[in-house]
Amino acid sequence: MSLIVHKYGGTSMGSTERIKNVARRVAKWHKAGHQMVVVPSAMSGETNRLIGLAKEIQENPDPRELDMLCCTGEQASVALLAMALKAQGIDAVSFSGWQVPIQTDSSYTKARIESIDDTRVRAELNAGKVVVITGFQGIDALGNQTTLGRGGSDTSAVAIAAAMKAAECLIYTDVDGIYTTDPRVVPEARRMNVVSFEEMLEMASLGSKVLQIRSVEFAGKYRVPTRTLSSLTDPDIDLEIEMKSGTLITFEEDEHMEQAVVSGIAFNRDEAKIMIRGVPDKPGVAYQILGEVADANIDVDMIVQNQGVDGTTDFTFTVHRNEYAKTMDLLKGKVQGKVAAKEVAGDTAVCKVSIVGIGMRSHVGIASLMFKTLSEEGINIQMISTSEIKVSVLIDDKYMELAVRALHKAFGLDKAPA
Amino acid sequence: MSLIVHKYGGTSMGSTERIKNVARRVAKWHKAGHQMVVVPSAMSGETNRLIGLAKEIQENPDPRELDMLCCTGEQASVALLAMALKAQGIDAVSFSGWQVPIQTDSSYTKARIESIDDTRVRAELNAGKVVVITGFQGIDALGNQTTLGRGGSDTSAVAIAAAMKAAECLIYTDVDGIYTTDPRVVPEARRMNVVSFEEMLEMASLGSKVLQIRSVEFAGKYRVPTRTLSSLTDPDIDLEIEMKSGTLITFEEDEHMEQAVVSGIAFNRDEAKIMIRGVPDKPGVAYQILGEVADANIDVDMIVQNQGVDGTTDFTFTVHRNEYAKTMDLLKGKVQGKVAAKEVAGDTAVCKVSIVGIGMRSHVGIASLMFKTLSEEGINIQMISTSEIKVSVLIDDKYMELAVRALHKAFGLDKAPA
Repeated sequence: MSLIVHKYGGTSMGSTERIKNVARRVAKWHKAGHQMVVVPSAMSGETNRLIGLAKEIQENPDPRELDMLCCTGEQASVALLAMALKAQGIDAVSFSGWQVPIQTDSSYTKARIESIDDTRVRAELNAGKVVVITGFQGIDALGNQTTLGRGGSDTSAVAIAAAMKAAECLIYTDVDGIYTTDPRVVPEARRMNVVSFEEMLEMASLGSKVLQIRSVEFAGKYRVPTRTLSSLTDPDIDLEIEMKSGTLITFEEDEHMEQAVVSGIAFNRDEAKIMIRGVPDKPGVAYQILGEVADANIDVDMIVQNQGVDGTTDFTFTVHRNEYAKTMDLLKGKVQGKVAAKEVAGDTAVCKVSIVGIGMRSHVGIASLMFKTLSEEGINIQMISTSEIKVSVLIDDKYMELAVRALHKAFGLDKAPA
Repeated sequence: MSLIVHKYGGTSMGSTERIKNVARRVAKWHKAGHQMVVVPSAMSGETNRLIGLAKEIQENPDPRELDMLCCTGEQASVALLAMALKAQGIDAVSFSGWQVPIQTDSSYTKARIESIDDTRVRAELNAGKVVVITGFQGIDALGNQTTLGRGGSDTSAVAIAAAMKAAECLIYTDVDGIYTTDPRVVPEARRMNVVSFEEMLEMASLGSKVLQIRSVEFAGKYRVPTRTLSSLTDPDIDLEIEMKSGTLITFEEDEHMEQAVVSGIAFNRDEAKIMIRGVPDKPGVAYQILGEVADANIDVDMIVQNQGVDGTTDFTFTVHRNEYAKTMDLLKGKVQGKVAAKEVAGDTAVCKVSIVGIGMRSHVGIASLMFKTLSEEGINIQMISTSEIKVSVLIDDKYMELAVRALHKAFGLDKAPA
């Protein structure tokens, strides 16, 4: 008998019929003798509905109150799923994040989990119950409700699996695993049976929507075996088959059978580019600019600095598109004068495309094949950023599909690995 | 500067536009120098929507999970109202029942408030904030979320007003006060400026929908000056006028200016009648029947026992229509055999009509005028129950409007008091 954590996304929880299917699937695992913890998202559309109400009332909703509001979506889900389990004769109990409790910091709308006390959950499991826990949310030291940001239910599930040393964390979504790239863009994209933790981290951080990046970080840090698989299969599918479906995130390189140089092409349309031009080049100027952005709790992704010939320097960086307006206001209001920059400009019509692969560590010429491929398609590169196992470029938004298809073909991802 | 509690019903919170109006009204009171605690209900339709989802999943939803589910409606409301106040430049903070905390017992779906710790609320008020608290819900000793039952937000508001010794508790609804009877049934019904606590208690318990009965009990027990008034007036209406509108519930009989013998006609369609016939008449038999019903946490309203000539006795009592099926199951399954009853039968097509008035204490012949009036309309009386200040009859549902109109006229309620 092992402890298993299941996480179900909003689509899987999208109607009462689907919730009953989730309950049937969980019941199957429970009946096979596993201790089950289940983390469902809000019903699909619910979080957007709530945010829509908030924005009708307050243009920039107060973050504490927004979290208070959005927490209700997952709370409704856990109650409904617990009922669905009981309706199938399985004893179940639901908990909100604050009831577990899942302690977080106080960064409303993007809180980080600090600790999980599993005492009560463990007691209910030992009493034979399925425990259903809200994803996406927790409680801060002052007793305020917090949320982990969009997609945070993945993180909740993996964090709970880590805290409770679960045998496996299964993330059920409306896709059946991790693909070499988005099949909607490249029909030849293939599902991977296994993917390394490092690759998954890059893929998730670069915008592959299957798993939230913090969930992958948690999985890596605590070595939680994590599998992403489809919730659209028959809930009564044979358990042995289900246990081997989807894509498993591995931590051992020798488990990684598909040793292609590049494993996947990721892309991300959620970024916006910001340029600060003509800044007198003095020590500390990067900190003066990016320190203010960090203090405003805005995540910066790519950063490029070019030194000019006239003693000035240009900074270019990217932020999430939702934080574009806030960042521009901050730079124009507070930063531009302080650093004596000539100009602050921005562009939201950009897209980041990345090639990711563990094999890049031991191969050369990967980046230049990427640049050559894009050049042959006439696509201009605006920014470049690299890590050990990925190369990312920022390009004009309109070339996104073209770039992804060309790279998928150039790196041979449409062919099954040997 | 006095502490004022406002409570707004679901209709007043029915859309983001209406929530903004509530915020304008609260802001007006706050700006006049009052410390404000606001208790909003869930947006209209929301609780029914949630219960509908629950029933799609489980025919008789698990009570703990149903409370977990339904709590989300009020939580969304408090967050949205706090945002609306902030959007108008008023600092505000929202709390769920468990955050206050409002301690209740563990009777899910009909919990009772045991204590309210106002430390945190008081601190936020002293910091100049409007505090918005969820109605309808609390937390039990084990940390489970509980609800107080339909209409429980009234009780929350009055209980908070009592605990904090508020100067007044204002219950805003979509009607402008307490009427001699429902104006939809009797167009001649008149609004009362004041009503005694005892009359209000009877009216509320008998089904006048303006205030939940437990809120009136709380108001009486702690002598909380409570006013019910309209939320449909212009939110910017002069404060002095608003403070005198609606109906005030008084505790001093000499404040009670409208000294009619009968003050109002209440009616209630939410009851169902249950008959247990042919029970061998032995001491303890009433307890054997009604003790089981009470143990199942089912409230019994009217109770009548008739002794037969053959050494058997018949019990008739009423329960809430929602608990009719549960009660019938209990009686047929557990009780009928034990007490050797010949028959258990029931009827849901019944209605309770009552005349209520403090003046009945010192007047005779009131009940007989009621019976005469109903007899003249050809309405058969199925059960009778009386208290110091009311007489209730159970009649066939279909005669409800006819009975209320005839009684309203017979007791002269269509004419203004001298």
